[in-house]
Amino acid sequence: MYEKKVAPIALDHIRIGDPFWKPYMELVRNHVIPYQWEALNDRIENAEPSHCIRNFRIAAGLEEGDFQGYCFQDSDVYKWLEAVAYSLMWHKDPELEKTADETIELIASAQQPDGYLDTYYIIKGLNKRFTNLMDRHELYCLGHMIEAAVAYFKATGKDRFLKVAIRFVDCVCENFGTDPGKIPGYPGHEVAEMALVLLYGVTGDEKHLKLAKYFIDQRGQSPLFFEEEEKKNNNECYWNDSYMKKQYYQAGKPVRMQKKAEGHAVRAVYLYSGMAEVASATGDASLFEACETLWNNIVQRQMYITGAIGSTQYGESFTFDYDLPNDTIYAETCAAIGLIFFARRMFEITGESRYIDVMENTLFNAVISGMSLDGKSFFYVNPLEANPESSLKDYYKRHVKIERQKWFGCACCPPNIARLLSSIGGYAYEANTDEIYMNLFIGGEIEAELGGAKQKLSVETGYPWNGDVAVTIHNDAESEFTLAVRIPGWCENYSLEVNGEKIAGADVISNGYAKLKRNWKDGDTVVLKMEMPIRLMEANPRVRADAGKVAVTRGPLVYCLEEADNGKLLQNLSLSDAPEFNCHFEKDMANGVVVIDANGHRTSEKSWGEDQLYRVYSDNKKEDVRMTFIPYYSWANRTPGELLVWVRR
Amino acid sequence: MYEKKVAPIALDHIRIGDPFWKPYMELVRNHVIPYQWEALNDRIENAEPSHCIRNFRIAAGLEEGDFQGYCFQDSDVYKWLEAVAYSLMWHKDPELEKTADETIELIASAQQPDGYLDTYYIIKGLNKRFTNLMDRHELYCLGHMIEAAVAYFKATGKDRFLKVAIRFVDCVCENFGTDPGKIPGYPGHEVAEMALVLLYGVTGDEKHLKLAKYFIDQRGQSPLFFEEEEKKNNNECYWNDSYMKKQYYQAGKPVRMQKKAEGHAVRAVYLYSGMAEVASATGDASLFEACETLWNNIVQRQMYITGAIGSTQYGESFTFDYDLPNDTIYAETCAAIGLIFFARRMFEITGESRYIDVMENTLFNAVISGMSLDGKSFFYVNPLEANPESSLKDYYKRHVKIERQKWFGCACCPPNIARLLSSIGGYAYEANTDEIYMNLFIGGEIEAELGGAKQKLSVETGYPWNGDVAVTIHNDAESEFTLAVRIPGWCENYSLEVNGEKIAGADVISNGYAKLKRNWKDGDTVVLKMEMPIRLMEANPRVRADAGKVAVTRGPLVYCLEEADNGKLLQNLSLSDAPEFNCHFEKDMANGVVVIDANGHRTSEKSWGEDQLYRVYSDNKKEDVRMTFIPYYSWANRTPGELLVWVRR
Repeated sequence: MYEKKVAPIALDHIRIGDPFWKPYMELVRNHVIPYQWEALNDRIENAEPSHCIRNFRIAAGLEEGDFQGYCFQDSDVYKWLEAVAYSLMWHKDPELEKTADETIELIASAQQPDGYLDTYYIIKGLNKRFTNLMDRHELYCLGHMIEAAVAYFKATGKDRFLKVAIRFVDCVCENFGTDPGKIPGYPGHEVAEMALVLLYGVTGDEKHLKLAKYFIDQRGQSPLFFEEEEKKNNNECYWNDSYMKKQYYQAGKPVRMQKKAEGHAVRAVYLYSGMAEVASATGDASLFEACETLWNNIVQRQMYITGAIGSTQYGESFTFDYDLPNDTIYAETCAAIGLIFFARRMFEITGESRYIDVMENTLFNAVISGMSLDGKSFFYVNPLEANPESSLKDYYKRHVKIERQKWFGCACCPPNIARLLSSIGGYAYEANTDEIYMNLFIGGEIEAELGGAKQKLSVETGYPWNGDVAVTIHNDAESEFTLAVRIPGWCENYSLEVNGEKIAGADVISNGYAKLKRNWKDGDTVVLKMEMPIRLMEANPRVRADAGKVAVTRGPLVYCLEEADNGKLLQNLSLSDAPEFNCHFEKDMANGVVVIDANGHRTSEKSWGEDQLYRVYSDNKKEDVRMTFIPYYSWANRTPGELLVWVRR
Repeated sequence: MYEKKVAPIALDHIRIGDPFWKPYMELVRNHVIPYQWEALNDRIENAEPSHCIRNFRIAAGLEEGDFQGYCFQDSDVYKWLEAVAYSLMWHKDPELEKTADETIELIASAQQPDGYLDTYYIIKGLNKRFTNLMDRHELYCLGHMIEAAVAYFKATGKDRFLKVAIRFVDCVCENFGTDPGKIPGYPGHEVAEMALVLLYGVTGDEKHLKLAKYFIDQRGQSPLFFEEEEKKNNNECYWNDSYMKKQYYQAGKPVRMQKKAEGHAVRAVYLYSGMAEVASATGDASLFEACETLWNNIVQRQMYITGAIGSTQYGESFTFDYDLPNDTIYAETCAAIGLIFFARRMFEITGESRYIDVMENTLFNAVISGMSLDGKSFFYVNPLEANPESSLKDYYKRHVKIERQKWFGCACCPPNIARLLSSIGGYAYEANTDEIYMNLFIGGEIEAELGGAKQKLSVETGYPWNGDVAVTIHNDAESEFTLAVRIPGWCENYSLEVNGEKIAGADVISNGYAKLKRNWKDGDTVVLKMEMPIRLMEANPRVRADAGKVAVTRGPLVYCLEEADNGKLLQNLSLSDAPEFNCHFEKDMANGVVVIDANGHRTSEKSWGEDQLYRVYSDNKKEDVRMTFIPYYSWANRTPGELLVWVRR
């Protein structure tokens, strides 16, 4: 009953032609992937060197030197290769493929006789390998290697990289487990769990699924493996001092007993994604229940309105229910991407649109805010409130940047965005033998085998600027299948037509989708028109940070105030009691966005002397102003300045 | 022109009999001083040991062992002795005096032949003394030793301790200075500067003033002494990583070039107090100007409405103008006390009441909040907003406690409160040959030589619960002098009568005081009646944290909401547009306080499901409530819970 109801469509069957998303994919292809390659090779001036390729060359014996960079540096090249694979699926590029092949050869040449492959320990001493699973990242690197290898295999049909990954998996299988003489450990940073199930999908080798299941089941069992490791290594976990302790790694108790999302946010959602995969592949009810509980905890208690997660810089972690500070926030781009991974799997298992609602919200807000509109700079942290002086001078907001950066020493986010955006079509459309799901409204052409025959859907949409979506069916012969069109959670009014004929939503809605099941013939059209009014949102009163405040949204987009439009001291702006909103498309702003303006007030500074810090309250000092809201994701693409999402009312 | 216009009255000439303050003094005498003595001797169960007395015993050769505790542990016994001295001035206690004398003997017996006296280096190795002025606290301990020694000399007439202090000063004079072969350094933690001027006041020895002036003038001169020290010690200052760098110590540039209060807040205000002392004693205009600039920066840009200072836990420091977060605040009790020291000196030099306005505000709010009503527990940090879960689970609010603690490893605050409260009469009344200033309205009997004759004032007041103050003059013969009665900055309406005859304020107000100059005869009475309405205050709109919020005050007291009266989630309360306030004295609450209530609203949680984090804003969900405000200083004396000062409006 936990078998996936829906599965990915091969990426080479999806050709995105969407005015909103295609440019992002082109940016990744034309800028991010080449830039990243330069970065991996330490050829970017004024940026922290990556050391990544060099570490592989040293490990392969091609160069002398010591390991440099983070212990998980290897994963950067894997994520890059994954993005390359996705890119090759929709845009052939022999030269890029050649570079990738050579890189894979380099990786392969560093592999040890027993399959082990982690440059940190190959260079620093193999006798220490697998001795600090808590804080070194061998199994994390393994996970990313698998994901890249599978993607590259699917993109090119070449199995060289896949075989390298399988050999490393074999090595891990040989060394890990609860049998005597084996290491009863598991990853300190999760990702291998979901990767192994992905690998199992390609190899069909039960051993691969079994290893994933072992990692999940063994995690947090008593005695705690990481505590035993500490004893052996005579060291102390940094997080023992915090209230999280081993839950920083989601390893303080068995995963089925974890009721709240805790600890490092990226680790957490990567683990939960793996749990969902294993639950599905093994039909494990208690494991799936744990996923649901954790999912609900996140989206009902610990998620920002932008879909971001991770309330604190301390441990880059979740904190506690309803604790969603806007200015000391962490909201790492990678964590948002991980939430999308988790959402996708929960959707695939349940077929329920509520998971895609979160995916869409996170994608349009918390994720794409992570990359500049020119694809050249990135946010690690995606705040909902920021100002330049605090970022500079407040130690506890130093992680909150008001300008995106070119690259990072710990470069997890840029390649993560790259691999997500290059494969975005796969998130938009999924299918099974009889159904095709339109999850995200992204224009393009999608081919799938449905009702036993080849179908092609052409999709055109003005999303997210309007809610009009038109689908045309192309097939050789009439065939019965279901076109499941997601009706987003934000959408209150819409109309749906098939070949010009109105469909009553109530008749066809199931699990949040309008399920149009019929004999489709070539040229049939479906037109969805969603009203996209401006919506003022409020947060649960248990969210202290948002008390008395509202957020402006339209369709899937959260809006924000920026200094460039509204001047400094954004917290002095408040919306009118009955705000009148206008919106219009500004083609020259931020590559074209719908801008919203509204009437509001500004607490005037004029009546205040330079020397006055407090005074008796007087009511008569508000100026009427017009407030300008822009889509949150597009902030910080002009003059650096203040940002505010939650506005006083 | 910077000579002090007003000077302290000897504490044994002031007998406090005030219903508000006398109990605090009794608490200090009966609880704090004895408790602290036990603490200094490591006799408190379940509290971190102080090691303080033991360190002295080891340094004196009376016991074997290693130094333990902070490097500035010595200062704890000095602050204790200072509090004891003040206490002895108004309450003879031969047994306590005996204990103090014995302690002084112990201290003396640890003194080195050349006068050096710091147990840290005496125990750990004298060859290292004076080599890390930046982070070790020898000169800080010296400062507190001097302050205690002078106080004890004034209280008892015994000069044993004073001579010990002078010998240590001699040793420092011998070793420090810009002459060749001497150390061109100065204290990493200031306090010696003001202490040395105090000593100079007793000894009249120019050398003592000169050393103070040297410490002030040399501070921050190029090349920076602390940078030179770093090079020698081959270490790195922890704060080099922050934007503060050496300004953490107020040592990044010459003091006259410092325009904003920066760095560690206690250090800062201790330095500024010393600067004011030296400026006054040497008639240094540029130095006094620097004091004014720094004072203005603090009170106009960096001070909480409670009079607290220090916006961040990071370095326990000032941050930047208008940065006054209420929940990540530091607001150390000691910093507030230091601001009172600074205020007192600025007042003594200028005779202006605006300094006393700040002193009074800080005293009634930021300082006495630091001690529980039973005198048995203390706050280091005095937040304006707190909740139990954040204090427990938010790493960046872990310093914000919602319950006062018994004692601290770094026990600076409790003895600092003790010495301030034991000498509070000296802050309330100051004088010169012809004038007596009533700065704080504290009931009691004050003797002073005025107009060449002995005068006694009897003061009765219901302050801070009402604004009625009655003064009766007692003297043997009619004499001309000025009774300067401060009209507080918060007071908008008052009446003033001398012997039942109304005095028009406009005729007599100067520098914020009603200056009643006349021939006073025995039995003359002065009656001041200040109206004490509830006042809603607002912060300058540049203060982001307080936007859209107000604070309730009455007289000198800031009020707050507490969970015990108002339930959880205080941020959901807002005052009505036109709030109706009531206030009444509750004799059984918090030793008797005026409680304020007002009508307001609570954003209802009732309409929210457990599963809903965000929803479309709806206006119709506020419940009418009665809000109960209590004096800020009295919070956290009942069931631990939430706190809020700035309330939405």
